[in-house]
Amino acid sequence: MTHAECLDALPTPRLVLDEARMLCNVARLRTRMTPHGVTLRPHLKTAKSVEVARRVLEGGTGPATVSTLKEAEVFARAGVRDILYAVGIAPQKLARVLALRATGCDLSVILDSPEQAAAVAEASRIAGNAIPALIEIDCDGHRGGVSPEDPALVEIGRMLGASLRGVLTHAGESYNVVGEAAHAAFAARECAAAVAAAGALRTAGLPCPVVSVGSTPTAHAARDLTGVTEMRAGVYVFFDLVMAGIGVCTTGDIALSVLTTVIGHQRERGWILVDAGWMALSRDRGTAQQAVDQGYGLACDIEGRVIPGLILSAANQEHGILALRPGSGETLPEIPVGTRLRILPNHACATAAQFDAYTVLPTDPDAALAEWPRFGGW
Amino acid sequence: MTHAECLDALPTPRLVLDEARMLCNVARLRTRMTPHGVTLRPHLKTAKSVEVARRVLEGGTGPATVSTLKEAEVFARAGVRDILYAVGIAPQKLARVLALRATGCDLSVILDSPEQAAAVAEASRIAGNAIPALIEIDCDGHRGGVSPEDPALVEIGRMLGASLRGVLTHAGESYNVVGEAAHAAFAARECAAAVAAAGALRTAGLPCPVVSVGSTPTAHAARDLTGVTEMRAGVYVFFDLVMAGIGVCTTGDIALSVLTTVIGHQRERGWILVDAGWMALSRDRGTAQQAVDQGYGLACDIEGRVIPGLILSAANQEHGILALRPGSGETLPEIPVGTRLRILPNHACATAAQFDAYTVLPTDPDAALAEWPRFGGW
Repeated sequence: MTHAECLDALPTPRLVLDEARMLCNVARLRTRMTPHGVTLRPHLKTAKSVEVARRVLEGGTGPATVSTLKEAEVFARAGVRDILYAVGIAPQKLARVLALRATGCDLSVILDSPEQAAAVAEASRIAGNAIPALIEIDCDGHRGGVSPEDPALVEIGRMLGASLRGVLTHAGESYNVVGEAAHAAFAARECAAAVAAAGALRTAGLPCPVVSVGSTPTAHAARDLTGVTEMRAGVYVFFDLVMAGIGVCTTGDIALSVLTTVIGHQRERGWILVDAGWMALSRDRGTAQQAVDQGYGLACDIEGRVIPGLILSAANQEHGILALRPGSGETLPEIPVGTRLRILPNHACATAAQFDAYTVLPTDPDAALAEWPRFGGW
Repeated sequence: MTHAECLDALPTPRLVLDEARMLCNVARLRTRMTPHGVTLRPHLKTAKSVEVARRVLEGGTGPATVSTLKEAEVFARAGVRDILYAVGIAPQKLARVLALRATGCDLSVILDSPEQAAAVAEASRIAGNAIPALIEIDCDGHRGGVSPEDPALVEIGRMLGASLRGVLTHAGESYNVVGEAAHAAFAARECAAAVAAAGALRTAGLPCPVVSVGSTPTAHAARDLTGVTEMRAGVYVFFDLVMAGIGVCTTGDIALSVLTTVIGHQRERGWILVDAGWMALSRDRGTAQQAVDQGYGLACDIEGRVIPGLILSAANQEHGILALRPGSGETLPEIPVGTRLRILPNHACATAAQFDAYTVLPTDPDAALAEWPRFGGW
C-alpha cells in the first residue's frame, strides 16, 4: 500500500507528519547556522515529542529550549542534558528546577526583575546549587525583558551572583513583518540588544558567557551574528501557514497536516463539511491579519497537494466548513462524502497541541506509517 | 486550609472547577425543563469527564449527547446507555458505531444526505442491527442539515427504513444574539423547523418518535416546546464569558477558571505577565465580536472575585499579558511576582480541552480539593 492508501484507512481527525519535509526543514536551518559559528538551541515546544527531538537536536541530545517544566522533565529523561526553560521563572517553580538539576540536567532559567533574581539567588544558596539564569532583554516591545540601557540589568546581574549565565532576547514582533529583509532587520535588533546588554554586564565587571537570540523568522534571515553565542528557533521544524504567509517557507515545506473526512455538503452555500473543527485545528487564526487569510487552514488532497483556493473557512468544535477563499477565482470541486483530505495548519504549535500523537509518513516510501507519541500539560 | 490556600500551593497553570457553581447551573436547566415535559439530553463535549457526567446526567446514566466516538466509548464504559453522536456520520465510522452498539449501548447517529442514509442502511442490514439515525434539520443556516421543506428529507427517511428514529436541529446562530427575547426567537425557530420536519415525515407515512432541539441559549429561553421530545445543551454546565456576554448567565455563574502565577511586569506599558498563555486558555477569542471584548479571559483573584477591568489582553504559547480593558476607567493594581490569579475563559469547551484534569473546589468548604480526570482525542 502507498502511504496515501494507508492514511485513507485511518480514523479521522488525525495529525499527520511528513518526515521528509521535517528533515529538510531541520537541515536547512542547521546548514544556515554553520558559517555563523553559533550554537543552535532548538525550541521543542512545537514538537513536544521525544522522537522529533532526536531528529532535531545535534547528536539527538544537544542543547534545547523548552516552554514548560514538563517539557524539561520529559526531555531530560530522554537524555537531553542542556535545557533552557525560556519563560520567566516564578519563585514557586524553583524547587522543581532544582529537583531536575539534581538529576544531572543543566537546566537554566530566564528572568527580568530583581524580585526573581533574589528568589533564584536565595534558592540557589539554600540548595548549594547555583541555578543558571539568563536575563531577558527586550529588543522590540513584544513581551517581557529589560532594556539593555536599563540600570536594572546590572542590578539583576549583581543579585544573581554565581547564577548569572548571560542574556537572552526574542524578536516576537518578527512574526508580523513580511520578507527576508524585514526579518533581517529584526535579527539585527535582536543581535544589537543582546550584545549591548552583554556589554553592559561586562563593563560592570560581571560575566556574560551566553548571548542568546532567536525566533524562526530571524534565524532564517540573520546576516551578522557577531557577539552572539546561540540561536533559538522552534516552529521551523514543521513550519505552517503563518510562516508561509511572511515568506519564511512555502506551503510545500509545511510538514504537518490534519487528516479529515468529508461528512456533508451545503451546495447552495458552497460549503463542504468535514470532521475537523477547531478541536483538531485549534482556534488559531494567525493568518487573519496576513495578506492571504487562510481561515482555519488550507485544504490538500490525501497526497498533500494543495487544492487551490479551498480553505477551512469556519470551524465549530468537531465540524469544519470548507469553502473557496473569497476572490480565489476557483470553482468548488465536487468532493463526495467519505473522501479524505488533509488541512495545513495556521500555527503548528497550536494545532499539534490538539493531538496526543503524530501519524508519521516515513521518508522511505516503502516503510510503514509510524506513530510517535506527543505530550501536553505542564 | 481554605480552598484558596490549597490553590495557592499548586503548580500553575491549572484548570479549576467550582463544583457549587456547576451544580447550580445543572439544577437551573433541569428545573427549567421540567414543566415542558421534554427529556434533557446534556451534551458532554464540554466536560469530557466521567465525574462531571455523573453530576449532569439524570440518575448519572441518563441520555447524553457527544461530539466524538471516543466520548461515546468512554461514557458507555462508565454506564451511560443512551448516547447520541451529534456530528454528521462518516461511512467509515459505522463499524465503530456498530461495535459500541454490540456492547448494549443505544448509540444513535445523525446525517443529512442520501449518501449517508444509504451507508447507514447498508451497514445496519449487514450487521443485522438497525443503527438509529436522526435526520439533521437546518433551522438557521448555521452549518449542516436539510430544510424541513426539502424533498430530500422524506427521501432520506425512506432510505433509512428501520434506522429512522427522528429529526434533530441546533440553532448555532443563537450564540450571536443577545438577550432572552432573541434567544426565545431562535428557540421558536428550532421548534418550528423540527416539528415541521417531523410532520413531513409523518405525512409521508414514516415514523418520527424523536424531535430533538437545542443549544444553551435556546434551552434557557424556549417558551413553547409543543411537539418537541428532547432538549440538548452543553456549555451551560460550566458557562463562560461568551454566554455571559449574550446574557444567558453572569460572570458569577462561570464554574471554570485557569489558575495562573504572575511572572513579571512591564509597568510603563501597563502589563502584568502571567504563566497562562493560549496553551492554557486556548486561542478562542469568542468575545472579540461582543459588546465587551474580554481578550483571552477576565482576571479574578484566587477567591474567584473579578478584578474590575483586568483582562488577558494578549497571549503567547505560555505567556499571558494582563492589562486593563480599554475604556475600563480602572487603575492597574499592583500585583507582585508570584501572586496567584484565576482567569475566566471565553469558551469553556475550548479552554477545558487544553487540560487533562479538573482541580475541583468541592461544595463542602471543609472538604479537600479533588482531582477529576478529563480526556481528549477521538
